[in-house]
Amino acid sequence: MTPVTDLRKTVESFWAAAEARDWAAFAKTLADDVVYTLPQTRERIRGKETYVRFNREYPGDWHARIERIVAEPGQVVSWVRVTVGPEETHAVSFFTGDERGLISGVVDFWPEPYEPPAGREHLVERY
Amino acid sequence: MTPVTDLRKTVESFWAAAEARDWAAFAKTLADDVVYTLPQTRERIRGKETYVRFNREYPGDWHARIERIVAEPGQVVSWVRVTVGPEETHAVSFFTGDERGLISGVVDFWPEPYEPPAGREHLVERY
Repeated sequence: MTPVTDLRKTVESFWAAAEARDWAAFAKTLADDVVYTLPQTRERIRGKETYVRFNREYPGDWHARIERIVAEPGQVVSWVRVTVGPEETHAVSFFTGDERGLISGVVDFWPEPYEPPAGREHLVERY
Repeated sequence: MTPVTDLRKTVESFWAAAEARDWAAFAKTLADDVVYTLPQTRERIRGKETYVRFNREYPGDWHARIERIVAEPGQVVSWVRVTVGPEETHAVSFFTGDERGLISGVVDFWPEPYEPPAGREHLVERY
């Protein structure tokens, strides 16, 4: 049982539980003193109970699908595609773990689509 | 010499070379057929020469500072703080490596600040 496997599996359980709206299973992936940070809005949530509630109350019929996970001991990053109806957005989450393999920190980024700046059309293709 | 160390070091060299505007050193971190993808604008760049040029021509007196790196064999994620004058933005980059430890793929996200949605003030603090 290696730490890298543990936290990767914990993050996979985190997303599976969120997708299933299984908030008991979701809570089991979290340390009691988990800290959630959103640098784009400069928001922070402290503690498992509040963080579970934030996710449970999150509006919309959203669905999350893991695109990529990168893991090392104590740190995991997930890139998730989140769909709400026909709209798809990306979420990138940096997880840190405690010594028990539970999630003690999450830093989330929600990058939005934007128009490419002019002047680089000669270098890029669109897809 | 393990692959995980190699690609992490390559990514560190990538950012150090970019910050130093040392485009010869920057090019040395890249596979010839590197593919660069920006999901937010749906732009793609193919090939080392074009990708180096894209970075070399990128406007503004930008500076990049690594905030966090997460690495496993063949995959690395960097979270970088990019400043242009007083403005700071985040860049999250997913790197994939080839068998020589060179960067063969980069997927970049540039998350922008936004105002938090109303209705969750009872759960979050601002910082």
